[in-house]
Amino acid sequence: MTKKRIAVDMDEVMADSIARFQEWYGRDFQLELTLEALRGKKPHEIVAPEHQAALRAYPNAEGFFRDLPVIKDSQRVLQALAERYEVFIATAAMEFENSFVDKYRWLQRHFPFIEWRNYVFCGDKSILNADYLIDDSAYNFDGFRGEGLLFDAPHNANETRYRRVHGWQEVADILL
Amino acid sequence: MTKKRIAVDMDEVMADSIARFQEWYGRDFQLELTLEALRGKKPHEIVAPEHQAALRAYPNAEGFFRDLPVIKDSQRVLQALAERYEVFIATAAMEFENSFVDKYRWLQRHFPFIEWRNYVFCGDKSILNADYLIDDSAYNFDGFRGEGLLFDAPHNANETRYRRVHGWQEVADILL
Repeated sequence: MTKKRIAVDMDEVMADSIARFQEWYGRDFQLELTLEALRGKKPHEIVAPEHQAALRAYPNAEGFFRDLPVIKDSQRVLQALAERYEVFIATAAMEFENSFVDKYRWLQRHFPFIEWRNYVFCGDKSILNADYLIDDSAYNFDGFRGEGLLFDAPHNANETRYRRVHGWQEVADILL
Repeated sequence: MTKKRIAVDMDEVMADSIARFQEWYGRDFQLELTLEALRGKKPHEIVAPEHQAALRAYPNAEGFFRDLPVIKDSQRVLQALAERYEVFIATAAMEFENSFVDKYRWLQRHFPFIEWRNYVFCGDKSILNADYLIDDSAYNFDGFRGEGLLFDAPHNANETRYRRVHGWQEVADILL
């Protein structure tokens, strides 16, 4: 029997990009972005109007995706999943031209058991031919042919249309 | 009715990477790579043993994918296809770390009517959820869920398992 296929988003699913927003916002404005305030919102939506442009520009800046912290349990669970499924990483590097190489290197470093052939850098995830998609953005499930698992993140707190997973242990409970 | 989806490979289908091999081989060794000699072969297979390593390294070198000539009729036919189909560009940038940004910019410049959301940089094309794949490498059709159209190129001259298209006008004749 052929293995089923899981596609996994990177930002806020494998890589903690919120941590970078918090770090840089603190550096530039000496203010804190709390997870509480981020509930149901994007970072630029919770700051003063005069700070919004700066926050929106962060992901385009050199180094934003470099050395992001790894989301808890993602390495352990993905390593186990990779034995039973075909695991693909599906991430939207096209939006942020600088992010290509940083994301590639981050994956090689932290998830060496997933080979580069299984990386997919794409803007529209409906192009994925997979059975599951683990993603924190519900719009990525539009037109996706498999089942979407919504990875819990502050900004998606109010999304109710998809099955929600609260962390990687819950992914393991469902798929392993 | 939803539009059908066509995925299109870049190298030797939209972008003439053989021209770059010829140019650089001439520059480095004052020798010619003829299309005749390339029949059924990869560039490194037709040169002297002491030149093989250099040729294999070309695609990894800075600038290999920059300013590649556009394959004849590809702009005109893809523009027409983009009106009747969803057109995705599917290319293996992961293999050549330097190629990400060059390929992205090349696409923006020569095919501005295809938006970045429809770029897919991937190593394994069986991940594509599309109805057609136009590609010069037959191995990319393994596990592809749609129909493969083999774009004629010197190296694939001996491949007989797939429907062959000789240039973009023939693609237009089939799909338009």
